[in-house]
Amino acid sequence: MKFPDWLTYIQQRTETILQTVLPAANVAPTKLHGAMRYAVLNGGKRVRALLAHGAGGFTHARPEQLDRAACAVELIHAYSLIHDDLPCMDDDKLRRGKPAVHVEYDEATALIAGDALQALAFQVLAEFPVSSTTSGQIEVIRLLAQAVGSHGMAGGQAIDIDSAGLEMTREELESMHVRKTGALIRAAVLIGARAGEGGTEDRRRRLDLYAKRIGLLYQVVDDILDAASDTATLGKTAGKDASHGKPTYVSLLGLAEARRFAEELLTEATDALTPLGERADRLRELADFIAHRAS
Amino acid sequence: MKFPDWLTYIQQRTETILQTVLPAANVAPTKLHGAMRYAVLNGGKRVRALLAHGAGGFTHARPEQLDRAACAVELIHAYSLIHDDLPCMDDDKLRRGKPAVHVEYDEATALIAGDALQALAFQVLAEFPVSSTTSGQIEVIRLLAQAVGSHGMAGGQAIDIDSAGLEMTREELESMHVRKTGALIRAAVLIGARAGEGGTEDRRRRLDLYAKRIGLLYQVVDDILDAASDTATLGKTAGKDASHGKPTYVSLLGLAEARRFAEELLTEATDALTPLGERADRLRELADFIAHRAS
Repeated sequence: MKFPDWLTYIQQRTETILQTVLPAANVAPTKLHGAMRYAVLNGGKRVRALLAHGAGGFTHARPEQLDRAACAVELIHAYSLIHDDLPCMDDDKLRRGKPAVHVEYDEATALIAGDALQALAFQVLAEFPVSSTTSGQIEVIRLLAQAVGSHGMAGGQAIDIDSAGLEMTREELESMHVRKTGALIRAAVLIGARAGEGGTEDRRRRLDLYAKRIGLLYQVVDDILDAASDTATLGKTAGKDASHGKPTYVSLLGLAEARRFAEELLTEATDALTPLGERADRLRELADFIAHRAS
Repeated sequence: MKFPDWLTYIQQRTETILQTVLPAANVAPTKLHGAMRYAVLNGGKRVRALLAHGAGGFTHARPEQLDRAACAVELIHAYSLIHDDLPCMDDDKLRRGKPAVHVEYDEATALIAGDALQALAFQVLAEFPVSSTTSGQIEVIRLLAQAVGSHGMAGGQAIDIDSAGLEMTREELESMHVRKTGALIRAAVLIGARAGEGGTEDRRRRLDLYAKRIGLLYQVVDDILDAASDTATLGKTAGKDASHGKPTYVSLLGLAEARRFAEELLTEATDALTPLGERADRLRELADFIAHRAS
């Protein structure tokens, strides 16, 4: 399958499994379930789902297992966006071209919908054999919990919120981005890979290096798009980092140097895959997709 | 060990394990970790930890396993209190006699601290063999996720938030309370029990009936204390259900009838344990403790 077709195929598969896993909007409490579905089923590129499938395809995982892994990381991603958009956080009213959850519903419902989506992600991983062994399944749950917690995504959000108006060194900026965006992207790759066969230590190390590089790459590109794109293209408010006085790779390095850094990360990510042969092609294509996306 | 001594012993054990499991306050991001510790390590009766130990003592679970189970349910409980107290929810400034997390820190930090505590609860269950088998461990994670999600605690919070000023039937009120408070209390018993040996179907059914009854009992007593006690005794704002126009067992039935209903639930809970002999004594004592507590 050509990459654009595979992209559409996995995106549609992911939409279908998310539809199934999310409680129906007519099941009580209906407002909460409506808000959860609104937040999750409103498009998005499903980058994390694609990475889980790409990595799991490489380790010969079963597609049904990867559906669940993809579902869990997308549910976590959706919860993080809801909470990020809340007035006490980034206070953003637009997400994927539509009103944010707290605008469409209300703040309390948005808060609880995010909380419930986090629980649902772990429930999905605990209810379905997402790995061929129970110990593999527990490892997948552990990987996700670590990526989401205070040393991962939540920690990155906390640093981000307190960064407005601060000068950050390049090391501090990288540390923030690695947690805020990188941790879940990395987890998507590792969880997808773990659903299949283990492989050698060298292969695990290479996949992890790839995962770390594209995790950072994703956020560097996010910084570039926020500075260089427009709201209509992004489906979320453009230029908000600068207006919030937030340190970004663009504010630190300038646009041209940030772009150069993104290309460097892309090269490092694909170089890590070099000895892994054709079976890693999807992961190469995904790195390129992440680097050169328009939104 | 006499019940009051056992109570103190388990509370101290739980405090110790929570101290260990929570990231140190000097580890980055320090403000977030400080807020997480502030929220969790500020006392509380540790009812859910006590129930996990009580149920696991009954099924001969190892105390170290029960420490982890107790830890997970207390982390979830602490996260739910942080989010409940936020301005967009109950907007309560006092918790356990101290400023709520969003007052002591700020709203964004409180939001993220709650999110990170939820992740940490699942991490604790995935990092340590909380049951003697891996399938038991996965079942424990599943039980917790179901209790916390939109059909459990989060669902109850959503119904609660939208209930202000509404008339509720007794069935609707029970349905709300069973989710909001009952689900996690029940999970504490089931998870503690699952850490040990399985037992017969009849025993599981009886433990579950006990768990459901004390889950509802806890909230009925909460309603009574909110109406009949004072802020100093409770350590949180008294009378807030009435001032928010929230339906409670007291507003629906009156104080005397609510007290009678609490005693009825206590009888049903202990009756469920009758054939289980002396080994269920801790669970009997805990039911009595929940029914007759002062805060």
